[in-house]
Amino acid sequence: MGPGISGADGQSLGQEIVHRINALGAISETSGHLTRIFLSPEHRAAADLLLAWMSEAGMRAHLDAIGNVCGRYEGEVSGLPCLMLGSHYDTVRDAGKWDGPLGLVTAISCVEDLHQRGLRLPFAIEVVGFADEEGVRFASTLLGSRAVAGTFDERVLGAKDRDGISMREALSRFGLDPDRIGAAARIRSELHGYVELHIEQGPVLESENLPVGVVTAISGATRLAVSLTGMAGHAGTVPMLLRRDALAGAAECIVAIEEFCRTDQGGLVGTVGSINAMPGATNVIPGQVSFTIDIRAASDAHRKLAVADIVRQIETIAKRRKLALQADVTHENRTVPCAPWLRRQVADAIAGEGYRVFELPSGAGHDGMAMIDIADVAMLFVRCRGGISHHPDEHVDLADADAGAHVLLRLIENFRPPQAADRG
Amino acid sequence: MGPGISGADGQSLGQEIVHRINALGAISETSGHLTRIFLSPEHRAAADLLLAWMSEAGMRAHLDAIGNVCGRYEGEVSGLPCLMLGSHYDTVRDAGKWDGPLGLVTAISCVEDLHQRGLRLPFAIEVVGFADEEGVRFASTLLGSRAVAGTFDERVLGAKDRDGISMREALSRFGLDPDRIGAAARIRSELHGYVELHIEQGPVLESENLPVGVVTAISGATRLAVSLTGMAGHAGTVPMLLRRDALAGAAECIVAIEEFCRTDQGGLVGTVGSINAMPGATNVIPGQVSFTIDIRAASDAHRKLAVADIVRQIETIAKRRKLALQADVTHENRTVPCAPWLRRQVADAIAGEGYRVFELPSGAGHDGMAMIDIADVAMLFVRCRGGISHHPDEHVDLADADAGAHVLLRLIENFRPPQAADRG
Repeated sequence: MGPGISGADGQSLGQEIVHRINALGAISETSGHLTRIFLSPEHRAAADLLLAWMSEAGMRAHLDAIGNVCGRYEGEVSGLPCLMLGSHYDTVRDAGKWDGPLGLVTAISCVEDLHQRGLRLPFAIEVVGFADEEGVRFASTLLGSRAVAGTFDERVLGAKDRDGISMREALSRFGLDPDRIGAAARIRSELHGYVELHIEQGPVLESENLPVGVVTAISGATRLAVSLTGMAGHAGTVPMLLRRDALAGAAECIVAIEEFCRTDQGGLVGTVGSINAMPGATNVIPGQVSFTIDIRAASDAHRKLAVADIVRQIETIAKRRKLALQADVTHENRTVPCAPWLRRQVADAIAGEGYRVFELPSGAGHDGMAMIDIADVAMLFVRCRGGISHHPDEHVDLADADAGAHVLLRLIENFRPPQAADRG
Repeated sequence: MGPGISGADGQSLGQEIVHRINALGAISETSGHLTRIFLSPEHRAAADLLLAWMSEAGMRAHLDAIGNVCGRYEGEVSGLPCLMLGSHYDTVRDAGKWDGPLGLVTAISCVEDLHQRGLRLPFAIEVVGFADEEGVRFASTLLGSRAVAGTFDERVLGAKDRDGISMREALSRFGLDPDRIGAAARIRSELHGYVELHIEQGPVLESENLPVGVVTAISGATRLAVSLTGMAGHAGTVPMLLRRDALAGAAECIVAIEEFCRTDQGGLVGTVGSINAMPGATNVIPGQVSFTIDIRAASDAHRKLAVADIVRQIETIAKRRKLALQADVTHENRTVPCAPWLRRQVADAIAGEGYRVFELPSGAGHDGMAMIDIADVAMLFVRCRGGISHHPDEHVDLADADAGAHVLLRLIENFRPPQAADRG
């Protein structure tokens, strides 16, 4: 059996991956829609299946202290530092089945392919399936990868789910010891780097007509909560020039934010996703409006400048309209740049498979945001239909799953651990 | 006792009015906030008080078939056509105490003043307190004045309040016969005209530093429900140029509506009071947004042209942004012009009291909208603090209540029934 052909029945990598995605996708709290939450019975069932696949793929597999599935495929000799591959296997509610599992299943299938060919490399390969990236249950994201990176914040053990069950209690019920999460942590010398394959969750590769792309960075994000206060009034009795309409002010801000981001040359994105106008009656001028802003860019400096410029514009609009302004940063994520040396190897693998190398930032967050603390990080994106994600319509064509797997397999086989110069 | 001094204890008209406004304002379903709803026990208590005041003022008073309080002060001979004065005595929830009652109480106090002076005029005076103008209970406005105008729509008898009680049942429980509402109807030959004093409910008189103003027309209103549908997406993964952001589109529409109305030379007002963006998450591009538009102008032609222009602008915005647009008219009220001959008499009374004559449209709806079907209509506005209405902070200074009463009293004493030419 040649490279890229895997499974007892001679399926292509893509076929095997789609088969496994469907098997994992069937493990759901709800029938019809996919929901698989951290430390749930479905988490357990999915972990068991993944551990079995890891074992079949020639890996030594175990569940770690936070509920991650971890498989290790030794290199030419035992105990070598590893190239770590992975993604998460929890989902949002009413999820698609590709977000997370595609990267994890593809990594397992690639290792299986090596194993079936009896190929050992001058480094180990580890595959990690992170138990919680989405943060649905305890409103705290990246729990799995933070545990691996040694940055798990023990204070979140007290967080409670919507049924009032604390994370500490949920870990115990799952059979894990909340006081031993530190045991999941790895150290930098054990890893050559961390590479994650993931669906793009956006429409760029589709618009570029490409199955795969190299990620330049996981964009940092700043979220703001903005409130504008004017004066409510009767829609009929207050002349336009005597109004202090908070919604008209917010609308001007939203148009300005969009225009600012649209004319940015560096891929900045800005979104007002939520708005609330009060009192919210047809015949009353809104006296107060609150809205959110989400700003992302592929560098922290770029994003911070943009946020400052946007806030300045909002201040100007509020001042001119005599609206009281409150603007608070509610959330801030640093940008995680992908390591140039590792990005280059991903790009070489893409080119080696005959595809045009296309670079794009990841606007969505990923486990690399935690893994950066102990490893250089790179990401490979796979096209998804219509850019749709976090939705049951999320879809990856079999051919694209296959393309992604072949790029990842080529990356593994040609992987060269970083040289001193690569560490910059 | 000279004109304008009323009450046994020699109070000014303004003092008596404020006293009565406070007495009426204490009749509320809720303590602390004023709520007085159609056909409630508070309606009954307020009616009883008003009927007593009417009798004291020398009027023959009764409750009519819909629950309006009606008082008649005969002229020099019995049975003459009347000058009808009035306003409503129902309230919104958490209301101010001036909206409606000020006009009604002022009219009663003016008649009382005539009565105390033994003055009979060459026409009768009738004062009507309309039982329901706000339409809070059955979501149908102007019930009292429609009954008087003979335009009460019997189909609304089937409407139910939030407790499931139909208007038919509520009328019966109140002691009224739902099948006899027609008996409340008056005919044109019985009325010389209808004049209503009301608080402005807007900030224009305050900004003009005037206690009173003449209303030119009750502005007609068109309300639209607009929905824009684009494509929801991840706030991080969809580049600006690939977005179909329904909220950014709505924001552009809101700014355009405001700009269109602000640059109108004819007093057009346009309001987006309610907006809903879906799914409404910080990190999701809104895929669908619905919002309302309320457009008012002092003439139907002006308003209809404006609505057409605004809809065209929204269509252009939606098309350019590839958003699906749905725009429906949900409500339309004709403009009610005040009769020039009657307006002139109001203006003369204002000038006679030494105030500058200032004309303004009424952006809010009033009982004149129904009364126009059987009478020429005019309105006198009284300044209210900050333009605030439909709110516990609604306030009229005693001096302004007094000024309004003296203008109304002068209007009554100098009133000349219309000549053939006046009917134009």
